[in-house]
Amino acid sequence: MVLKTPEKFREEVKKLKPKVFIGGERIEDISTHPNIVPVINGIAKTYEMALNPEYEHLATATSHLTGEKISRWTHIPHSIDDVDKRAMLNLEMARQLGCCHYRCSGQSGLHVLASVTYKMDRKLGTDYHQRFENYLRYVQENDMSVDVCQTDPKGDRVKRPMQQADIDLHLRVVEKRADGIVVRGAKVQQVGPMVAQEHIILPPLVPLVKGEEDYAVCCVVPNGAEGITYICQDSPIEIERRYAKSVRHLGEPEYGSELTAWVIFDNVFVPWEKVFMCGEVEFTANLLDKFVRSHNIVCRGSCKVGNMDLLIGAAQTIAEYNGIQDVSHVRDKITDMIRIRETTRACTIAAIQYAKEDPPGSGVFFADPMFSIIASLNTQYGLPEVTLMAADIAGGSVITMPSEAELQNPETSGYLKKYFKGVADVSTEDRMRMLKFLQHWTAGPQTVLMWHSGGPINFNLGLAYMLGKSGLEEKKKFAKRIAGIKAD
Amino acid sequence: MVLKTPEKFREEVKKLKPKVFIGGERIEDISTHPNIVPVINGIAKTYEMALNPEYEHLATATSHLTGEKISRWTHIPHSIDDVDKRAMLNLEMARQLGCCHYRCSGQSGLHVLASVTYKMDRKLGTDYHQRFENYLRYVQENDMSVDVCQTDPKGDRVKRPMQQADIDLHLRVVEKRADGIVVRGAKVQQVGPMVAQEHIILPPLVPLVKGEEDYAVCCVVPNGAEGITYICQDSPIEIERRYAKSVRHLGEPEYGSELTAWVIFDNVFVPWEKVFMCGEVEFTANLLDKFVRSHNIVCRGSCKVGNMDLLIGAAQTIAEYNGIQDVSHVRDKITDMIRIRETTRACTIAAIQYAKEDPPGSGVFFADPMFSIIASLNTQYGLPEVTLMAADIAGGSVITMPSEAELQNPETSGYLKKYFKGVADVSTEDRMRMLKFLQHWTAGPQTVLMWHSGGPINFNLGLAYMLGKSGLEEKKKFAKRIAGIKAD
Amino acid sequence: MVLKTPEKFREEVKKLKPKVFIGGERIEDISTHPNIVPVINGIAKTYEMALNPEYEHLATATSHLTGEKISRWTHIPHSIDDVDKRAMLNLEMARQLGCCHYRCSGQSGLHVLASVTYKMDRKLGTDYHQRFENYLRYVQENDMSVDVCQTDPKGDRVKRPMQQADIDLHLRVVEKRADGIVVRGAKVQQVGPMVAQEHIILPPLVPLVKGEEDYAVCCVVPNGAEGITYICQDSPIEIERRYAKSVRHLGEPEYGSELTAWVIFDNVFVPWEKVFMCGEVEFTANLLDKFVRSHNIVCRGSCKVGNMDLLIGAAQTIAEYNGIQDVSHVRDKITDMIRIRETTRACTIAAIQYAKEDPPGSGVFFADPMFSIIASLNTQYGLPEVTLMAADIAGGSVITMPSEAELQNPETSGYLKKYFKGVADVSTEDRMRMLKFLQHWTAGPQTVLMWHSGGPINFNLGLAYMLGKSGLEEKKKFAKRIAGIKAD
Amino acid sequence: MVLKTPEKFREEVKKLKPKVFIGGERIEDISTHPNIVPVINGIAKTYEMALNPEYEHLATATSHLTGEKISRWTHIPHSIDDVDKRAMLNLEMARQLGCCHYRCSGQSGLHVLASVTYKMDRKLGTDYHQRFENYLRYVQENDMSVDVCQTDPKGDRVKRPMQQADIDLHLRVVEKRADGIVVRGAKVQQVGPMVAQEHIILPPLVPLVKGEEDYAVCCVVPNGAEGITYICQDSPIEIERRYAKSVRHLGEPEYGSELTAWVIFDNVFVPWEKVFMCGEVEFTANLLDKFVRSHNIVCRGSCKVGNMDLLIGAAQTIAEYNGIQDVSHVRDKITDMIRIRETTRACTIAAIQYAKEDPPGSGVFFADPMFSIIASLNTQYGLPEVTLMAADIAGGSVITMPSEAELQNPETSGYLKKYFKGVADVSTEDRMRMLKFLQHWTAGPQTVLMWHSGGPINFNLGLAYMLGKSGLEEKKKFAKRIAGIKAD
Repeated sequence: MVLKTPEKFREEVKKLKPKVFIGGERIEDISTHPNIVPVINGIAKTYEMALNPEYEHLATATSHLTGEKISRWTHIPHSIDDVDKRAMLNLEMARQLGCCHYRCSGQSGLHVLASVTYKMDRKLGTDYHQRFENYLRYVQENDMSVDVCQTDPKGDRVKRPMQQADIDLHLRVVEKRADGIVVRGAKVQQVGPMVAQEHIILPPLVPLVKGEEDYAVCCVVPNGAEGITYICQDSPIEIERRYAKSVRHLGEPEYGSELTAWVIFDNVFVPWEKVFMCGEVEFTANLLDKFVRSHNIVCRGSCKVGNMDLLIGAAQTIAEYNGIQDVSHVRDKITDMIRIRETTRACTIAAIQYAKEDPPGSGVFFADPMFSIIASLNTQYGLPEVTLMAADIAGGSVITMPSEAELQNPETSGYLKKYFKGVADVSTEDRMRMLKFLQHWTAGPQTVLMWHSGGPINFNLGLAYMLGKSGLEEKKKFAKRIAGIKAD
Repeated sequence: MVLKTPEKFREEVKKLKPKVFIGGERIEDISTHPNIVPVINGIAKTYEMALNPEYEHLATATSHLTGEKISRWTHIPHSIDDVDKRAMLNLEMARQLGCCHYRCSGQSGLHVLASVTYKMDRKLGTDYHQRFENYLRYVQENDMSVDVCQTDPKGDRVKRPMQQADIDLHLRVVEKRADGIVVRGAKVQQVGPMVAQEHIILPPLVPLVKGEEDYAVCCVVPNGAEGITYICQDSPIEIERRYAKSVRHLGEPEYGSELTAWVIFDNVFVPWEKVFMCGEVEFTANLLDKFVRSHNIVCRGSCKVGNMDLLIGAAQTIAEYNGIQDVSHVRDKITDMIRIRETTRACTIAAIQYAKEDPPGSGVFFADPMFSIIASLNTQYGLPEVTLMAADIAGGSVITMPSEAELQNPETSGYLKKYFKGVADVSTEDRMRMLKFLQHWTAGPQTVLMWHSGGPINFNLGLAYMLGKSGLEEKKKFAKRIAGIKAD
Repeated sequence: MVLKTPEKFREEVKKLKPKVFIGGERIEDISTHPNIVPVINGIAKTYEMALNPEYEHLATATSHLTGEKISRWTHIPHSIDDVDKRAMLNLEMARQLGCCHYRCSGQSGLHVLASVTYKMDRKLGTDYHQRFENYLRYVQENDMSVDVCQTDPKGDRVKRPMQQADIDLHLRVVEKRADGIVVRGAKVQQVGPMVAQEHIILPPLVPLVKGEEDYAVCCVVPNGAEGITYICQDSPIEIERRYAKSVRHLGEPEYGSELTAWVIFDNVFVPWEKVFMCGEVEFTANLLDKFVRSHNIVCRGSCKVGNMDLLIGAAQTIAEYNGIQDVSHVRDKITDMIRIRETTRACTIAAIQYAKEDPPGSGVFFADPMFSIIASLNTQYGLPEVTLMAADIAGGSVITMPSEAELQNPETSGYLKKYFKGVADVSTEDRMRMLKFLQHWTAGPQTVLMWHSGGPINFNLGLAYMLGKSGLEEKKKFAKRIAGIKAD
Repeated sequence: MVLKTPEKFREEVKKLKPKVFIGGERIEDISTHPNIVPVINGIAKTYEMALNPEYEHLATATSHLTGEKISRWTHIPHSIDDVDKRAMLNLEMARQLGCCHYRCSGQSGLHVLASVTYKMDRKLGTDYHQRFENYLRYVQENDMSVDVCQTDPKGDRVKRPMQQADIDLHLRVVEKRADGIVVRGAKVQQVGPMVAQEHIILPPLVPLVKGEEDYAVCCVVPNGAEGITYICQDSPIEIERRYAKSVRHLGEPEYGSELTAWVIFDNVFVPWEKVFMCGEVEFTANLLDKFVRSHNIVCRGSCKVGNMDLLIGAAQTIAEYNGIQDVSHVRDKITDMIRIRETTRACTIAAIQYAKEDPPGSGVFFADPMFSIIASLNTQYGLPEVTLMAADIAGGSVITMPSEAELQNPETSGYLKKYFKGVADVSTEDRMRMLKFLQHWTAGPQTVLMWHSGGPINFNLGLAYMLGKSGLEEKKKFAKRIAGIKAD
């Protein structure tokens, strides 16, 4: 068995020495920094789940390479059942953590490369797939925590990479050497990269065309490799955590909010055995398409369903704490939240049910493209509504509440205990905690972050149109036939 | 093989002599009346489909009673695959007909009775299930066209049946005799009952309680039985059809709009062997719940998806006829129509995928209750939007168009051919037909009828809350744990 | 006093002999044809209102040309009060008729020409304004019923007039003679033109550019002028009316649904004194802009508010007839309908309050452009919602109801009286009539027609962006200042 | 002239010694505490505006008591023009500050008391109005900064004040003495009370009934009176400010986010001359109604329109910084944001235009009740949409951006300057600042706070139904007349 214990993972993290910055300052020890600890907790939880008998059916799988029991986060889906369990695992994690566990992007990256390298080799006679399987074996045997670095800074959004004032605004190969390649650029908005043990670099989020070969690169580099700098986001939620007297006063004590960072690649060397694409622009569209299919159902189609469970549960709880759970508009809102949650969940189930092996012969399964986008779109439209309804049920206190630290202050705690009551049998402390949890979600970056992560609405709408377009001819045919219009 | 040919069905219809009224007048011969012919066409199509090699995998099944190949419209779903095919069949029919085929309610009625009579007998020691199977054998062997009569007039909507000024406002048993029962009342808004060969009477759409035993009745009566009168709806669309010079000038020449009728039961006798419930109020909730699960996925979850296909196809066609198919707001609308269509379809797939045998041992499968309601709700919210977008793309001509009869009028046809053009290469006639088709859907009763059929939004919202309520405790638990609130 | 009596108007109509077609047939006498009578009734009502002491403060005004008391439908707004009363008059008419009164477009046409001819003459030294005032004097002194012919067939919507396969697809001047001009083309979707005594022809609904001079034409022609043919729309609602045993069985007995027609101009001659623009393409944008400002607040900003009053009133009535007026979802819907109605009304009030003289010196007042578009947009988004909520409250009977003619049928009337009851104290007849009224609005062309009339949503969205764009710089400045960004 | 200078105000604040707590700690000097300084800045701005010639027409008025030029924030509206200018002033302040100026609630409180005390005296023969005018004279002559304390903790929301487990959960009179009264309770979610010089206490936000006389109290107490404790909200945004290296790194450097506090009244004495209601429960409904009418148009109807200006301006700016301002979905979103903004503004204009003196003879004007609620509802529905569209246009960087402090860090500033670019000609610093500004609004408490302030949606929906209900009879009458139903 190659399952890592959470303790082992924490030890390994202690040995990492990446250059990480937050709030304008260098983080000396990531293993103890208040903003990094929740990231470590999140990843550690994935290791814990795999060893927990209650969840092992979801969190582990059998390697198609070795036949060994491995963590599902390093497993390549080889059946509809695999696609299903991967989604359920992410849903379960989301409602246990209320935050990111930071391993799903890596899982998607491995998933996509398993298929695309296979396809490239069949078509081009390259050996990318063999290189990839060697690497995958390493990841599985060492139960490595891997992430994906994918989003480029992009600069002027209506210009192609080569048209930018600075052609490094999309990460590119600046040198090809006998032993490997050198890349330069940045990948932005990556979740928890400073703790990930390995980074998979993928090409930009647009299909590349001839002339853009330098940008068509897939490769892997280890955490903290020479030339890498991590610059963390620093929103109020991170600052609150740095200066809190106790994590108990925070809305999400243990796992926090998803911490992202900019990853700067300043001439980073990658040996050839870790390079899985280098210049093959014609495969970037396929790679992107598969990444979307792989990721949509775990991210917006499952993780966010778990998040909605928390928002619904919290909204119902605070309604009960305030005595309004049976008021008609509250019931209407809870019903609508359920409707939205179940709609995304249903779309995900459909995407899984129609999963297919792609390409044939590869053994790798991907969810249905249309339904996975529809799952994503329903979350993108629905999650902000769910959040707003939760905020509406919670009322203004969700923002105007004092700090829980007041409960330790003899001059104010009595007042709070007396006046911060809802129904008589719920303690002020419980009511404050539930409101703080809801503040975290409804009046801070959490929902917007969750909503943005996975890309903008318009990206998915564009994909839905492209996929749906092919079906328009058939639909026209049916309408014309009934209307009595002769076929063309 | 017991599959009836469409011709045989049409012959049988000729022999029916029900008392049918429309527009204040008696219909002497239903087989030739302009408003009834489209209903006959719709039902005949179901017989045609079962004999069509292209569709027989959907439209036929193997009887669990006789092992013979039968029409799926008389088959009881005995597996997830049965539930799936039944849904697909209804989707396919909807986009072929653009209208009702009038056999799905009967299919749902048989489905529900197969399960509920089994359950009653197990619990009560009655012989309803045996009676039902005898009847089902007859239906299957004769490939009968069956419908359900379910919706009572209801009177004052906030009062119970016994509280109404007239206690006949819900159909009830007025006499029990040695050889059978006598029922009185009306069932309203039934689709195509004047052509259905058999009527299944089901209890009202509210769970009944002790003291309301007279209303808890399930039984079967043949078309035109003594005491039955059919009073048809008579909206402008029916009148247009009665007076059209040619059905070709109509928006839906062959299958028309769904024709409903009020069915009056004025002391109708039913022999005991055709009675499947009589007074067992405690089973009405279960029957209602199963009817919803059975019907939602074929009606709003599938039939309306087929309808949306037509609306999308028609909208895209008229956009092309007007030259605007690549204008951004048109593409945005087509995309949104696709999103709505695929969302309902996905919910239906999920409902099917989670179908279960109910009750255990009965062999009868029903779709997942929550997902089937969610499928229905998404249609109820989405279908009017799809229609409105289609109307918007079509423009004002969808209403203001002259009659196609003008094309046969030498004084006006030249003007229309000259001026009723969109893009140069589409004929005026084709453009008029597509607009007339869209008029039928967007500016007539069709969408509202399709939207209403299957019950009101609030009925489904209430069910969604009830089903979702049981899951709230688990959701609260997850939220409380993260917020740091001790379990109760 | 120059106010015409409704009787005088009806006599004048009898003398009109236009070539009118409907359903493929010529209408011999428009004064008695069932589809035309409601149009005559609608216009006659405008004459009646002006003589009704209760409404004369709205329906009459003082001519700025003669100082005489005239009908407001021939009056040019010369103050904010005029703009206000014109809007209120249209709102009042709409809820009295539940349909078009067919004189508001003419009112807008006169309004716009009063301003644009003034502006042209000041700039170009032409005498259009004098010609126009002469004509206006004739209209006012004879209290003429005038309409506007504005919407061209347009053909391929993405091509300019000259690029069409047939350059007549936009109405144009085909000959200029010493005594006048000859025009050819068609104007489509005009409301009630076969009864209007005079037609104002306006240029297409796009600003014209150099090279398109032939299309830049404003002029007036009388009803039934040589070369004019009227081809009426013929939707189911028109056919229902033609064949109804009694208008009492219709949803809108007296005023019907708005009847539109295509008006074909087949080489129609117009003398120079009735030509108010001929080739001045540079003024077409201004004319279009003013037409929108003039028309939006009377059409979507007022008339549709009156329509919403009817829908709200009908929905509340049917709710009471069914006993559900205090059920929470019904109250929620009534509240939302009120919110939508009051929002449009408020936008109209704001548009009026910010009305301005334009151009300065002309004396002619126009409502605020932005607010008049916003009023229109809120109706376009809101009216379908109001209709759908009314349909939801009414329930399926709104479509499935039998004809009121059944109440005269001894074989069915007893059944209907017994079973078509809601609450006990409301008669079946009243309930059927209210449902028929709601059918007319929610399940027929009425709402879609009302929604389309005044142009598509995207037209108004485009205008809103253009108007709003000029304010973006100021908004950016405020945001930048607070964000600490130096001014450019 | 009695206009206070901002400097004078700041001096007066230095002398205040209220007991204020934040984050569990006592604030020793409110005049320098980082969380309080923005509140002081906001209020100081009101004094600055009144002395600024550019704004004095809005920010000053003539006292109806003294005839002197006073600050509009102490003025009682005596005309439609007053109601208008008060609204415009609040709109202007909102887009200059991007935050609360903390004087509008006091302005509303004075407004309401001027009317209600007049009404009470006329009816009851009391001398409340004289007491109030004496107090108002003091406020005007000393240009005092006043706020309102209105929202009670409420406890179990479905119980009345006397039914609560702790009857102090609504503020009440605990003792009546010869020289005055003693009150106990708390008022929660008050904006900036620790800096307000005077507090107006108003009764709870539900009409009181007989038996609840102790809760029907209006009176005034000075800042920091014996028995008062202020406990501030402490969300991440407050903590970020406390620990920021420079306010320049914040999203709203000068005015911050609206700071609220709980105000505890622990047996506070109020002399009779400052008591304006004491037990007159029958006037609480009127007072509440007027407060809503007074406050809705300045708060949601104007202040939030100014906020939307900032969000629109910021969204357009960041779109330009990213090069996407002409992409169709961005233009669509900007258009929709404009539509929402102008809709609320229009409703406010209508509410002002229909303002009335109330009660007659009092000289005090209030905006139209229905339109002021509609203005509020449109903001409540629209503001979250505007925010979400701004967040969508801004993209994920709105949350994932690093701190501006990195620009002073030599190890990271180079990377940021290189990679945090949009279009080439905008500096990284400007882009970061605009994103930080947008983060403040879209991913922090600001929008939710702005959205909640002024009460929940359902409160306004309830009022809209009540107000609209009276108009239903007329609407029913119109609908019935057209439908041919005889009047009752």
